[in-house]
Amino acid sequence: MDVDLLSFENPIFKSYVFWSAVLIIKMLLMAPLTGFHRFRTQSFANPEDLPSKKLKVKFDEPSVERVRRAHRNDLESILPFFVAAFFYVLTGPNEFIAINLFRAVAVSRILHTFVYAIVPLPQPSRALAFFTCLLATLYMSIIVILKTL
Amino acid sequence: MDVDLLSFENPIFKSYVFWSAVLIIKMLLMAPLTGFHRFRTQSFANPEDLPSKKLKVKFDEPSVERVRRAHRNDLESILPFFVAAFFYVLTGPNEFIAINLFRAVAVSRILHTFVYAIVPLPQPSRALAFFTCLLATLYMSIIVILKTL
Amino acid sequence: MDVDLLSFENPIFKSYVFWSAVLIIKMLLMAPLTGFHRFRTQSFANPEDLPSKKLKVKFDEPSVERVRRAHRNDLESILPFFVAAFFYVLTGPNEFIAINLFRAVAVSRILHTFVYAIVPLPQPSRALAFFTCLLATLYMSIIVILKTL
Repeated sequence: MDVDLLSFENPIFKSYVFWSAVLIIKMLLMAPLTGFHRFRTQSFANPEDLPSKKLKVKFDEPSVERVRRAHRNDLESILPFFVAAFFYVLTGPNEFIAINLFRAVAVSRILHTFVYAIVPLPQPSRALAFFTCLLATLYMSIIVILKTL
Repeated sequence: MDVDLLSFENPIFKSYVFWSAVLIIKMLLMAPLTGFHRFRTQSFANPEDLPSKKLKVKFDEPSVERVRRAHRNDLESILPFFVAAFFYVLTGPNEFIAINLFRAVAVSRILHTFVYAIVPLPQPSRALAFFTCLLATLYMSIIVILKTL
Repeated sequence: MDVDLLSFENPIFKSYVFWSAVLIIKMLLMAPLTGFHRFRTQSFANPEDLPSKKLKVKFDEPSVERVRRAHRNDLESILPFFVAAFFYVLTGPNEFIAINLFRAVAVSRILHTFVYAIVPLPQPSRALAFFTCLLATLYMSIIVILKTL
């Protein structure tokens, strides 16, 4: 029984793995994006990174710090989602609900990065993207707790 | 054999999943707690978050930064625990030891948040809470390494 | 079929678990390393941590901040690797490629810590260590996406 749950033949697990892999790639791209702004604004955090001896380390370049905040928010939001959703798959949820939750999280986190770190948009765009993932992860965690009490 | 290890019929795995889901919810609550202190002290990190044009972004509000340090410590402590404990379950550990390790980690991390970000208490309260999770995760990782050498 | 994939009898999964546990221990050691530099330079982030009433909190001690940057980079790089590599194991990859990818990631992340936080070395030593893990995780994520499309 539980075996099938962790197989790609289980469409819920397959969807979870697919969207999680998409989000991993999205997270990985935050590093080059940070690097792009570091070089563009010549703002480096370590002496050994400075391309010229005339430069000094710099920790308050707004464009760099903005990407770093978006990246940290990914760690706070996406990594717990990976764990909660994995457990949630094991509870044998409704297929329609589960797959659409995963899609909603993936799309909302891509939008979160877009409105935070690519083209900063007015609130509540970022808040809506943020809370979609938070509430979905919270919902899944509660289901998991109810199933393992 | 290993199949049963990842089933909720395995009490060790069930306990791991339950306490991990509790800790995920605890981590998710750090974001609203940060938001609460941001609004209370009107300390926002992004220009688009400012409720009034008279405000400026602020990165050094102590109550906000305290919650952010507690949250970052969660990322550094709880997320590795999720992975180490998952592997540890697969080593087929003693049930009594395993379940009490998970309980100890969950309780200590909830206490960590309490004494760090809710009601700051003198040391060594936070240090004790911190090292309980660290040592438990270290122990589980060493068991895992010995079983997979 | 998939059952065997998550068994220590699967040499790919065993290697994944072994190297991941090594990296968890490496990550856990960042906290004592931070503590060492905090005590050595008497640079503490919280009022309740100060050993003497004459001290003040300090957030800009270079040796402490360097270890913290290395630690944060671990969160950004190693934690996504754990997830991507787990999915990658489930795709049933080539054993030689998979095991050597895991070894490369583990060795490169240990070197990353060494050249960043222990003995700072000139670039591109840190960049090479960083991109080894990033590209390996990206490769594994792409394989996972192709298998779950």
